[in-house]
Amino acid sequence: ADGKALYTEKNCHTCHGADGNAPIMPLYPKLAGQNKEYLVAQMKDIKSGARANGMSMAMKAMVMNVSDEEFTAIAEYLANVK
Amino acid sequence: ADGKALYTEKNCHTCHGADGNAPIMPLYPKLAGQNKEYLVAQMKDIKSGARANGMSMAMKAMVMNVSDEEFTAIAEYLANVK
Repeated sequence: ADGKALYTEKNCHTCHGADGNAPIMPLYPKLAGQNKEYLVAQMKDIKSGARANGMSMAMKAMVMNVSDEEFTAIAEYLANVK
Repeated sequence: ADGKALYTEKNCHTCHGADGNAPIMPLYPKLAGQNKEYLVAQMKDIKSGARANGMSMAMKAMVMNVSDEEFTAIAEYLANVK
């Protein structure tokens, strides 16, 4: 899976900005360069409901149609963005 | 309040590493350059219990003796680390 393509296809950029570096609100996290394992864990936890604080609710609808394999590909892409 | 000093005093560096750039485990997030507002919200949510997923449980004991004013100072310091 192509993480960079998925980042756009799954509308991650809509809130987190190009390459995960420019969130549209200061309450949203920057993602570029973040640890891959941490990113995967957060996406899975938001999808399962284990993480539901603050604005993560806004993300839940977005991750519902993203698979674990796609989470990994997106996280790998983001972890390597400078 | 001196955010850089608090980052060490409150033992943030124990898990997140020097300047928030070198977490001791890949499941812990890098913090350097992260949005200040996002950082404050996560610290408050972990303290209150609103966020309790994954390894954030390990952080709860750490933030229990950190005030809102100190959260802001630490977040301001971290947001400006390169």
